[in-house]
Order: sequence, then structure tokens, then C-alpha cells
Amino acid sequence: MSNPSLLILPGDGIGPEVMAEVRRIIDWYGAKRGLVFDVSEDLVGGCAYDAHGTPLHDDTMAKAQEVDAVLLGAVGGPKYDSLDFSLKPERGLLRLRKEMDLYANLRPAQCFDALADFSSLKTDVVAGLDIMIVRELTSGVYFGEPRGIFEEGNERVGINTQRYTESEIDRVARSAFELAMRRNRKLCSMEKANVMESGVLWREVVTEVGKDYPEVALTHMYADAGAMQLTRWPKQFDVIVTDNLFGDLLSDLAAMLTGSLGMLPSASLGAPMANGRPKALYEPVHGSAPDIAGQGKANPIACILSFAMALRYSFDQGAEADRLEKAVERVLADGLRTADLLGQEGVAPVTTAEMGSAILAAL
Amino acid sequence: MSNPSLLILPGDGIGPEVMAEVRRIIDWYGAKRGLVFDVSEDLVGGCAYDAHGTPLHDDTMAKAQEVDAVLLGAVGGPKYDSLDFSLKPERGLLRLRKEMDLYANLRPAQCFDALADFSSLKTDVVAGLDIMIVRELTSGVYFGEPRGIFEEGNERVGINTQRYTESEIDRVARSAFELAMRRNRKLCSMEKANVMESGVLWREVVTEVGKDYPEVALTHMYADAGAMQLTRWPKQFDVIVTDNLFGDLLSDLAAMLTGSLGMLPSASLGAPMANGRPKALYEPVHGSAPDIAGQGKANPIACILSFAMALRYSFDQGAEADRLEKAVERVLADGLRTADLLGQEGVAPVTTAEMGSAILAAL
Ligand SMILES: CC(C)[C@H](C(=O)O)[C@@H](O)C(=O)O
Ligand SMILES: CC(C)[C@H](C(=O)O)[C@@H](O)C(=O)O
Repeated sequence: MSNPSLLILPGDGIGPEVMAEVRRIIDWYGAKRGLVFDVSEDLVGGCAYDAHGTPLHDDTMAKAQEVDAVLLGAVGGPKYDSLDFSLKPERGLLRLRKEMDLYANLRPAQCFDALADFSSLKTDVVAGLDIMIVRELTSGVYFGEPRGIFEEGNERVGINTQRYTESEIDRVARSAFELAMRRNRKLCSMEKANVMESGVLWREVVTEVGKDYPEVALTHMYADAGAMQLTRWPKQFDVIVTDNLFGDLLSDLAAMLTGSLGMLPSASLGAPMANGRPKALYEPVHGSAPDIAGQGKANPIACILSFAMALRYSFDQGAEADRLEKAVERVLADGLRTADLLGQEGVAPVTTAEMGSAILAAL
Repeated sequence: MSNPSLLILPGDGIGPEVMAEVRRIIDWYGAKRGLVFDVSEDLVGGCAYDAHGTPLHDDTMAKAQEVDAVLLGAVGGPKYDSLDFSLKPERGLLRLRKEMDLYANLRPAQCFDALADFSSLKTDVVAGLDIMIVRELTSGVYFGEPRGIFEEGNERVGINTQRYTESEIDRVARSAFELAMRRNRKLCSMEKANVMESGVLWREVVTEVGKDYPEVALTHMYADAGAMQLTRWPKQFDVIVTDNLFGDLLSDLAAMLTGSLGMLPSASLGAPMANGRPKALYEPVHGSAPDIAGQGKANPIACILSFAMALRYSFDQGAEADRLEKAVERVLADGLRTADLLGQEGVAPVTTAEMGSAILAAL
């Protein structure tokens, strides 16, 4: 049997430096735990544009379709701000999501005990927080047609289309209910059914799917109220399911609540492949942080924990994922902090590589 | 010269009880400050549906077009959840906004000193917070066509359209720049120009309008990053301008940050009428809170401060608005709290009417 395959796309900004630490972890798993991966590496985002004039080369896209999982760093940077919309670094990432049909984006918002102080929220509001946001990732206003900037009379009009079919809502709702079953059996669905018909359909389909999961307590909330409730008392939630655009805002908001933004991973999952594994892409929640790129300041933990999610969701290695997550917690409990996590006590920051080494040692 | 005219629409839930306190304040201004208003009252939302089978009767709409300002309580309630989309209480409010063409929704997010403790955020993050969100209110996905639930193949699809013309963006951007000029001359515009073409046009037009306001420091932020930055360190902002849907979420988020949700007013302004006053509707940010309606528990301050905004923006009575706002601050400083503001010390709550009386006394 051949080894499981991983395509690594470090991307732009701090992407390459955080991914370098993940590669060391991957190597450790091969050497010490007999978990050998066939790893290939390629370009996405601004660096792909620099090399090929497109944020995602067709060959890279084809490779991503073939591997067992893709691991992505981050894309984007001010250098590419003036590029045409269709050439922007983000389009590379969006193409991967769309063509791999990764419809369920799992974004855990977890507050690490050692970092609870670091949140802008009161410690009791966030300590122990552990929620999971399931964001629809391949439809909605991100991909709906018609879209573009058009002439109309003597002015221009910018148009995007929010669009959800029943089956698109159904499948992501199922992913969310499945997760809720493995967690605390509470699911809150968020939309704007009071204003948008696409939200009316969303609510209807989620309710319908809920009949197949009678053990899960399903609630519905308008997305604006959701933003408020996440801010007021996030621990009222377990799993949240929402559309692509609301999910973009709400999952970033939830991530920021934890104070652990540099720590948070994500998984984007599609339908099972022939080998039973879901199509999958794993990436940290943080961006490419061009301002600190190349300085050894970046926190590699979000990217390392994204690999832990890959172990769990793509490779059925839940125990090894736990091991890696525990190693991260231990290092944090020992007081190690990259520069993004400072400001609390008089701790001196460690570099990206030092953090990677400490996690390796803790493994 | 005739008196300025006010149309009062108490609406549903706690709307009528908070509005009753505002009427006492209005009467006080007539008796004590010679500011006499011609006040009429009518129905909107669920109560209008109960009476007329529509959430806003055409006669009410016509009245709203004629008065100098509309004061609205709140709309909605579970009783109306199963109504058809076009009959829901919210449609009454949305029709008012649209037909009065109230394109600039001003939503101050202000943290009252006496209530800083009450926020879920750390006190130093929110104490003294005073930002203004300008939300576009008459276009975007709230009103764009096509919209609805359609059959497609053998399933249904929910569709809404995000749509902004250059002139729609231009006019709300001007409102925001004007406000920034009267405040700290900092304006941050939020969209998703990395994903949505309507956001690309938004950013372009706001940048163009900015050339007419060289003294205002203009920045741009993606809306997801905006949600994060509002949570992390809201005091970095002065005025924020954003579209209808992002504004819905971000202004509610900002309101919740302050811990003063029951305190926050809003103004929705349109173009100047023949008498030079802008078309205007004022309403509290909070909802109809059906769970506590009719129990004398509701906090009337947001609605009272909405009337203060009316004094300022519709009736050129800035000094009288200041007076009313100061009276509210005094009462809070004295320790008076409605039930929504409890949980800190061992204070006993006052009723809606007691709060109203205290503010009257402080005036
Ligand atoms: C980079 C950008 C296109 C992306 C998005 O908007 O989905 C990002 O914000 C995310 O949440 O993954
Ligand atoms: C009641 C609802 C239609 C409304 C909106 O979505 O605009 C409300 O949330 C608001 O922010 O005023």
C-alpha cells in the first residue's frame, strides 16, 4: 500500500515559515511513529502569480485533486492589491475550495487555558471556550452568478448573487449535525431569514435535516443576533452552522474572542473520495501577515494544529492528533510565547523555529 | 409657523412601553422648553398586521412621508414567525426605510462610563469607547432583485442579489465623511473587495469621494477583519462606513461590545426635504424583546436617546439633545438600573416608568 499523500502549499507572507515547522512535525511522524507521508510542494497565491501569472496553476489544481490532503499556509499581500480581481492571490484559494468542492469548513474556536488572559474579553467569558463553526464554503455570494461591475445608464453597478440550492444546504447541515453528535449535541443555525429569502430556504432545509438527528437540540438565530450573542456569552454555543459570507465574519469574530488567533486551525472538507477519505484542505485561520513575514516572528501553531486536524479528519489518526494538540498545550503551559502572544507578563518571545522545536521536543 | 411634526410608531413587544416614556419626555420639552411637537401615532409591524393584514398600511406610509421625523419602537415577535415573508413585521420597517429613501443609518456605539463593567469585554478595551457606524440602509442584498425561492431542476434555490450603484455608494460615503469631519476625522470603510465585485466598486467610489475630504484619514478593511478588529481593539476606530448587510452585523457587534445595548439609539437619514430637514426615522438598536414585553422591565433609554438624536439631526436642537443625554448619564451615575443592566452589584432594578421618571427629574 502506498503512503498517504500530502500537497503542501505554503503560499505568501508568513506561510512559508510556519509551514517549515509543520514539515519538521511531518518528518517526526514519519521517523518516530511510522506515519510516512508522500509530500509534494507547490505554489498558490501571490507567489504563484509571480511565477506563472496566475494565482493557481492548472497543474497545481490537478495535483490538489489527486492527493489525500492539501495543507495551505496563507495567501495575499499588499504587493498584489492592484491586481485585477481575477488574478488576486485569494482567487487561488477560492478556486481550490470550489473545484475540490470543499463545502464544509470546520473552524474550531477554542480558548487555550494558558492564553485566556490574552483575549480582549473578560477571562470568565472565554476561559474553557470550545465551539465549532461549520461554514458553507463553496456556494453563496462567493460564487453566485451573475457577478461583476456593469454599466447601467450613466453609472456603474456592482453585483453579486447569493444563491443556495436545497442540496447545498442539506449537505453542509448534515456535516454540522454529525459534528454536533460527536460533541455536545447542540446546533445553532444562523441566517437572515427575516430579510433574505435564501435565509428562509436555509432555515427550512436545516430544520428538515434536523429530523434525522432528533438527539441534537437545534436552534435558529439571525446572524446579527448571532454576532451579538457570540460577543456576549459565546459559551452558550456548541456547533454553529452558517453560510459562506456570514461564516466568514462570524468565524473570524469567534476566533478573535478566544484571544488565540495565531493558534486556530481550520479544515475544509468535501465528499468522500474513492479511498473513503474526504477531499480535504487544511489551513490556519490567520492571514499572510506580510508586515512580519521573513522575520521569524510568526506563530506556527495554527498551521501545526491544521496538520493535527488533517491527522484526525483525513487519516483517521485521532490519537496522534490528540498527541500533537497536547504537545502544543504543554509548550504553552511552559510559558513559551511567539511575539503575537506577548503583552501579558514580561516574557521574551521565541522565534517561529524555536516554537517548532519546543513542540517537537514535547512530542 | 406650524410646529414640527412627529409620527410615533411604537410597534411590537416592548416598543409601546419604552415609547410611553419618550412621550413623557416630548411633553416635557413642550411644557418646559417651548419645543412643541405635533405628535401623531400609528401602527407598524405585527400589530399593524393584526389590525390591517399588512405590516405597514399605505396610510401610515403616506403619513411617514409627510412628517418631519418618525420615531419607531421595535417590531417583531414569535407570534408572526410563521407568516409569509412579505407579511412579516420586519417588512413594515424595511418598507419605511426604502420608500423614505433613508440611505444613511447612523449607529453610535458608545460605552457609558457607569456601565463599562457590564460589557463582556475587558474594561480598558471598552471604557470611553465612542464610535459611529454609518450603514447603508436602502440598497444591497436587502432590496436587490432578483430575489426569492425558485424551482430549478428538481429542487428549490434561494436567491438574493447584492447590488450597489456608484451613486448609492457615493451618497452614503459623503454622509460618513461629513460625520468624520465633525468627529476625529478618521473613516474606515469595510467590504469584501477580495471576494465580491460589489466590494471592489464600493472601495473605488469611497476612495474617490475621499478626495473631497483630504482632512479625513481614510482606511479600508475587509469586513471579516473588521469584525476581528472591532473585537480586539474597538477604540482604533472613529467612523466606520459599510454596506447594508455588513452594517447589520457589524453595528450589532459594536453595540454589544459597549455592554450598553439597551442604551443605544440610531438615526436613519435620507435626502433633505423642502424645509431643509432630512427625511428621518429614529429607533433604538434593541429589538422587540417579546419575552419581557408588558412587564415594565424594559429599558427606555435607547428609545429616549433616539429622540435625542431626532432633536440633533432633525430639529437643529443640539443643545437640547446634549441636555437629554446628560440627564441620562446622570441617572446612570446615580446607580439607577433597569433589569437588563443588573448583574454587577446588588442593585435592585427600577421599572421602565421609574427610569423614565428619573430622567424627567434629571432634566
Ligand atoms: C482570503 C479570503 C478569500 C478568505 C475568505 O473570505 O473566505 C478568508 O477570509 C477566509 O476566511 O478563509
Ligand atoms: C429587524 C431587521 C429587519 C433589521 C435589519 O436587519 O436591518 C434589524 O436587525 C436592524 O438592524 O435594524
